[in-house]
Amino acid sequence: MNHSTRFLFASSLVAAVLVASTAAWSQQSPKPEQLIKWRQSAYQVIGWNSGRIKASLDGTYNKDEVAKAANTIAVLANTGLGTLFAPGTDTGKGWHDTTVKPALFTETARVGELSANFSKEANELARIAQAGDAAAVKEQFGKLNRTCKGCHDDFRNSN
Amino acid sequence: MNHSTRFLFASSLVAAVLVASTAAWSQQSPKPEQLIKWRQSAYQVIGWNSGRIKASLDGTYNKDEVAKAANTIAVLANTGLGTLFAPGTDTGKGWHDTTVKPALFTETARVGELSANFSKEANELARIAQAGDAAAVKEQFGKLNRTCKGCHDDFRNSN
Repeated sequence: MNHSTRFLFASSLVAAVLVASTAAWSQQSPKPEQLIKWRQSAYQVIGWNSGRIKASLDGTYNKDEVAKAANTIAVLANTGLGTLFAPGTDTGKGWHDTTVKPALFTETARVGELSANFSKEANELARIAQAGDAAAVKEQFGKLNRTCKGCHDDFRNSN
Repeated sequence: MNHSTRFLFASSLVAAVLVASTAAWSQQSPKPEQLIKWRQSAYQVIGWNSGRIKASLDGTYNKDEVAKAANTIAVLANTGLGTLFAPGTDTGKGWHDTTVKPALFTETARVGELSANFSKEANELARIAQAGDAAAVKEQFGKLNRTCKGCHDDFRNSN
């Protein structure tokens, strides 16, 4: 596993809240496998955008690229990823078998706290990225990544 | 294939521009398979969010849910999905074999036009969704979906 891949793994799972907004789904009730596929996809997209920021920080800084990527992560952090961790999705296969730990479905207070931290740091990164100060982005990007790791450590099985 | 699944297929591929922002990737050069996996993931996330809007329109309208979903689609439409269609990604396997048609890599003017339409209609839906008028959202959602179909028809193989 090269550096880039490790980085993407580290960024590809984030905290999520368990409070499902069930109203909008009442007509369709997506199957657990669909929910798992969607959340695996969402974390891939977060990983892609984290990679864009890292590439800019490691190479030639591109303000527009970083701003777009940070904004994308922030929107995903706030869109309601927690709804994709509905009851019954503790096991199952989306693109691949889920790597979620059962504890995510019981330790709701802790998961909510981690999820809020993720949103907070993602929003702050999106704000800072608009200004285009690479050093400030780098520092905030580190804070964001620590919120990713915080959730991975407790609620994701390594694969 | 049920209605929901058909809908998600219809929403899961959208127009993309071919102008790659190569600067930020110069240090890492993601492999074609990674780019394909990211774009397949991005369209899944778009499909998820399209499904949220449709579920709200078909069931009990949830303004907050629709606004979040429309905003997520708009951000993805503007983040630079075209960079995931870099040269060399006309064939290959991400989560699955790509369904892109070779024409997407040559008909750049047409693809750029479809991509711009997608962004325009997605931005407009996000704007309208803030106001919470379900009828207006429904009409604009139809316009957005037609931009999806416009690109699918020409540049995606059915599978």
